[in-house]
Amino acid sequence: MIQAEIITVGDELLAGIVINSNAAYIGEKLFELGIYVRWASTVGDDEKNLLQALEVSYNRASLVIITGGLGPTHDDITKRIVAEFFHSKLVFDSGLFARIKELYKNMGRKLSEEQRCQAEVPDKAEIIENTIGTAPGLIFTQEDRVYYILPGVPSEMKRMMQKHVLPLIGRMAGARELVFQILRTTGITESELSRRIQSFSVRFPDIRLSLLPQTQGVTIRIMVLDCTPEDGKRMLMEGETYIRDTLEPFIFGTGETSIEEVVAQLLKNLNRTISVAESCTGGLVSHKLTNVPGSSAYFNRGVVAYHNTAKTDILGVGADILKKYGAVSAETAVAMAEGVRHSSGSDIGISTTGIAGPGGATPEKPVGLVYLGYSENDRSFFECRRYAKNRIWNKERFSVAALDMLRRALLGYAPNPL
Amino acid sequence: MIQAEIITVGDELLAGIVINSNAAYIGEKLFELGIYVRWASTVGDDEKNLLQALEVSYNRASLVIITGGLGPTHDDITKRIVAEFFHSKLVFDSGLFARIKELYKNMGRKLSEEQRCQAEVPDKAEIIENTIGTAPGLIFTQEDRVYYILPGVPSEMKRMMQKHVLPLIGRMAGARELVFQILRTTGITESELSRRIQSFSVRFPDIRLSLLPQTQGVTIRIMVLDCTPEDGKRMLMEGETYIRDTLEPFIFGTGETSIEEVVAQLLKNLNRTISVAESCTGGLVSHKLTNVPGSSAYFNRGVVAYHNTAKTDILGVGADILKKYGAVSAETAVAMAEGVRHSSGSDIGISTTGIAGPGGATPEKPVGLVYLGYSENDRSFFECRRYAKNRIWNKERFSVAALDMLRRALLGYAPNPL
Repeated sequence: MIQAEIITVGDELLAGIVINSNAAYIGEKLFELGIYVRWASTVGDDEKNLLQALEVSYNRASLVIITGGLGPTHDDITKRIVAEFFHSKLVFDSGLFARIKELYKNMGRKLSEEQRCQAEVPDKAEIIENTIGTAPGLIFTQEDRVYYILPGVPSEMKRMMQKHVLPLIGRMAGARELVFQILRTTGITESELSRRIQSFSVRFPDIRLSLLPQTQGVTIRIMVLDCTPEDGKRMLMEGETYIRDTLEPFIFGTGETSIEEVVAQLLKNLNRTISVAESCTGGLVSHKLTNVPGSSAYFNRGVVAYHNTAKTDILGVGADILKKYGAVSAETAVAMAEGVRHSSGSDIGISTTGIAGPGGATPEKPVGLVYLGYSENDRSFFECRRYAKNRIWNKERFSVAALDMLRRALLGYAPNPL
Repeated sequence: MIQAEIITVGDELLAGIVINSNAAYIGEKLFELGIYVRWASTVGDDEKNLLQALEVSYNRASLVIITGGLGPTHDDITKRIVAEFFHSKLVFDSGLFARIKELYKNMGRKLSEEQRCQAEVPDKAEIIENTIGTAPGLIFTQEDRVYYILPGVPSEMKRMMQKHVLPLIGRMAGARELVFQILRTTGITESELSRRIQSFSVRFPDIRLSLLPQTQGVTIRIMVLDCTPEDGKRMLMEGETYIRDTLEPFIFGTGETSIEEVVAQLLKNLNRTISVAESCTGGLVSHKLTNVPGSSAYFNRGVVAYHNTAKTDILGVGADILKKYGAVSAETAVAMAEGVRHSSGSDIGISTTGIAGPGGATPEKPVGLVYLGYSENDRSFFECRRYAKNRIWNKERFSVAALDMLRRALLGYAPNPL
């Protein structure tokens, strides 16, 4: 059984200037390999405390991942202290020095002789190449323990994890690296999802299932433990097929995909263009869609029609509809979607209108209520959903629900019945 | 010197399902009181590991804050283990039981007899009332050490920190609670800011200044250490006045204020309405403005004019302007701001047009370039800024810069010259 520990180094983490997302990322990735992190420790840029943390970890963990403090400045102490801990000498690596010089040159900066120490590496460490930054990663192996020392810059750390550390750990952990799958769902609550797949554990007693509620919906992890890679792959495929058959329209992707990336890919593949009319989401649907690089290929425009005159002027929603049904209604949602589609000439129009809160609610229209509208050439429809949290959360949930409505429509599924 | 440690408890933190924002929040609040957190440890819902973490902390820290694992479910072990650690017995508190029953009733749920254990408290602990949840906070004092045990639910933890823990720690730390101030700046780099206030430490040798680059700009913390409250207050005021005089137009607020909240308050106070025309920010400026509750009072509409036809159709930007200067230009930015102001009838229009990346750049118009437009009754102007990170960051920086341009205009400052 692998006992894993994460050590993160940096004053900025302890002072709350930077939230420790590195530890969360590493914990999640190890979890996906079936390895549970037992401890996560953070110390500042302090030699004594880092040395102590290394000692403590050595006595309890067999796999230790350390991030932070590998940079070139005075308070970056990790390389030196870890080398000291493993009785390893720092030696100058001329190849690494040439690479760092080149990197500086490309950034239009000059490397001073003082910064030669960046090219020093501990003689007992294996080196992990850093293709996007200066500090290489380090691997120390001693007795039954393995220490991976990675930069604190998230992009550099993640790249080393994906390219080097996770494959190595996967091999160390046996077959486990192969036999897990992550399915991402949205538009269904955790309890309803549990209910629908409740017979899973009877059918597949050797597969472990975990449900994780996340911002965009409930993530399902399917994991097969303690078997050969061949058996694991086969079992995993059977389990995944069962879940896909049971939950199909709710599953929007695998791995780290976001709903906006899925929708973007569908719009591109189907060669369709879209425009968005938002009220309660205040621009967040457009923001999400335009977060995907290359979105100008299919995203034409967004209208944040907060004031009713914006709904009538730009979107052509009839004053009679607003008067008769109100701004928060199925009729207005559909009229907004149709309006933005017509005025933009896009293939598809979608819309949101609801009560994000805390103000604006009535007994019939409570905080958290939202109508989502959809319009394309030969059909229009709406979905009505209800959430109940604060304003920021409601905007987020409303936006994800709108993108999911779009995803279902593009895939030919029925609107979400839940 | 207070040696502080944070211990966070929960499997979900180690598996990366939840990012450890509680530790960051507590670290930041203690830092503001002049107390540096030396260690932050995370353990899972595991009795042995939690007990070990308590022992380690007792040997090195004098102030320990623990969050998580106080709930009513089986894997919530913190109360029991901490009581065991301090040789304290759990005793039933009938007053607390009545309060929890009431809370359940208000949520329409029934409290089962099994859940009576929620009303048990360690006999050696002082109790911190939880006004919004069921689990109370606990304080253990032994030898020179103080342990605060708080719920893991962020809203409950934060309320206890603000109402009880921070005032208590402030008193414990002496005068420090009174004598710090946080000024938030934007639109100026950390190095330029340092340069402008470089003589500060000569003028005010007893005041400690720290600069923290954050998402919306550089935050300045001014702290006076080791003096009486009266002296501290006086010195702080002198130091703050100096910084305000030196950096005035760059300072947008104090404490935890965000730029959108500042702008929202200004619009309300001045009774002005606004509409937004966005290109490269894709809806994020409107999203930020509508994150503030009550924004419908001053926010009329937003237009995300991604496609050029949207710029001409809705915003009335001349095809000749787009052709002559391009979509990313000062002229287009101003025309967009004027267009959205005219068509909406708002008092003010602002706009963004730029290259968020990674595609769309030319040698003259690189990734990270943005033009921001402003229009009101008797004047129009633009600002041009340059950032260089990835798409998501650029959208964020562009949006903050647009809101800061608005803030300066509302306050009668000149456009940002940097």
